[in-house]
Amino acid sequence: MSESAQKKRVALVVQYLGTAFYGWQRQPHYRTVQEEIEKAINRTVSSSQWIPLHGAGRTDSGVHAAAQVAHFDVISPIPAEKFAIVLNKQLGNDLLIRASAQVASDWHARFSASYRRYRYTLYTANPPNLFLAPFSWHYYYAPLNTASIEAALKPLLGYHDLAAFCRAGSERSHTWVEVQAVQCIRKGSIVEIEIQADGFLYGMVRLLVGMLVKVGTGELSTEAFREIWQEKQRDRVKYSAPAKGLCLLRVGYEEFPFPESIWFNSQPHFNLDATEE
Amino acid sequence: MSESAQKKRVALVVQYLGTAFYGWQRQPHYRTVQEEIEKAINRTVSSSQWIPLHGAGRTDSGVHAAAQVAHFDVISPIPAEKFAIVLNKQLGNDLLIRASAQVASDWHARFSASYRRYRYTLYTANPPNLFLAPFSWHYYYAPLNTASIEAALKPLLGYHDLAAFCRAGSERSHTWVEVQAVQCIRKGSIVEIEIQADGFLYGMVRLLVGMLVKVGTGELSTEAFREIWQEKQRDRVKYSAPAKGLCLLRVGYEEFPFPESIWFNSQPHFNLDATEE
Repeated sequence: MSESAQKKRVALVVQYLGTAFYGWQRQPHYRTVQEEIEKAINRTVSSSQWIPLHGAGRTDSGVHAAAQVAHFDVISPIPAEKFAIVLNKQLGNDLLIRASAQVASDWHARFSASYRRYRYTLYTANPPNLFLAPFSWHYYYAPLNTASIEAALKPLLGYHDLAAFCRAGSERSHTWVEVQAVQCIRKGSIVEIEIQADGFLYGMVRLLVGMLVKVGTGELSTEAFREIWQEKQRDRVKYSAPAKGLCLLRVGYEEFPFPESIWFNSQPHFNLDATEE
Repeated sequence: MSESAQKKRVALVVQYLGTAFYGWQRQPHYRTVQEEIEKAINRTVSSSQWIPLHGAGRTDSGVHAAAQVAHFDVISPIPAEKFAIVLNKQLGNDLLIRASAQVASDWHARFSASYRRYRYTLYTANPPNLFLAPFSWHYYYAPLNTASIEAALKPLLGYHDLAAFCRAGSERSHTWVEVQAVQCIRKGSIVEIEIQADGFLYGMVRLLVGMLVKVGTGELSTEAFREIWQEKQRDRVKYSAPAKGLCLLRVGYEEFPFPESIWFNSQPHFNLDATEE
């Protein structure tokens, strides 16, 4: 058996604009990221069995990904790092494999991940803006106090049961999450909220942001926000931020064969400040 | 004759993503910005004659506009500032009237303009990036020295014959241009070139950027670049930068009824620097 005929595990860094996808996970009758890449893999490689693609996690319909991660096992003469080129030729212009590389056979896109990081972008000025529209929530109904939002975020750091921010339909067996980093930054009319955790509950970031905005406007105090999640008052979590403002920024691994330029910060920040002269 | 039946001149600030347009100017069989807005105006207003829309200037196929300006004359009970709302309901999601307002009957979108300012965006890192792809030229073939580009730009300031940077088909009677401001800024892997002038020749910014990139890589010296335009060596201007990196940033007027938030800096800067923590 030649070396090229051995099974190898190939990891992919995947970028997509979520607008025209019905999310990551394969499902009948809808265009999904997982299916589009799986079809490309299985068209490329002649395998007696369908080769499945394993993602680091699902993203919802309309959610973007700057650097989603996935892997598949394959017997092919194509070198692992060439798969990005081969697959990209078969993908739409809103889906891109940024790089591919071989990983150890026990490396797993989902189970080896040590964190996921999401960024939520809000655009708070009044006039609509076409350049920002696909990537942000246009929230101009009331001013947002980002210091209040950050104050509400800080207590989330650590290991907590965040059942209050879990939509029905979660595939997880429990609702405990280790929140590793939080921040809320304003640059002019753009507000970015970032949350990093070992894993995320179904719908968690959008529910969090939906409620954090109420903290930002002053409709909800930081104390009330804290009470809601500490006491698991799921029924008080009534707002979910729109999908288009959300982006899976990156997935972190102890061992990862890609340079940072491929995966670390590949969603641009948007900045409407006046041009420097 | 009631006041509402009097003819009024309405100015529009128009934003568009140029990707799916065949430029500004109306022409048979192609989707253009001018035609799409004109059709919306003429559907809205019952006029015995077709109401034409006058733009501050043409933009080429694929070029974006953060704040193009246009005007039309109309007899209508609709208040001038409501036209933005009424027209937007009839426009695609890549075309937006940011605001509308009445102007004096001798105010003219094209002839009253004191300057136009364009921004050209280059993305210089190696891996492609879907978030930047529609708005930038992915130039990663050689490193760009932005100090050299700025050095080549500076002598353009002032009133010069720039025939070297004029494509055939210009509607202007001469090729003299007053360049009012130039800059080249790098933020990480993003390079922005901005040029402000009283007016622009046909294809001027794309030809300029096509040649400035050669200065940035060192293939062309700043002296050679200067010689080309000073001696009107049109035949040496062989490169035109792709349309998708170009954006009409704004048009300036002595008298303009819109606040700066509508028109001044409405294309976001893109920034791939790591997130501040």
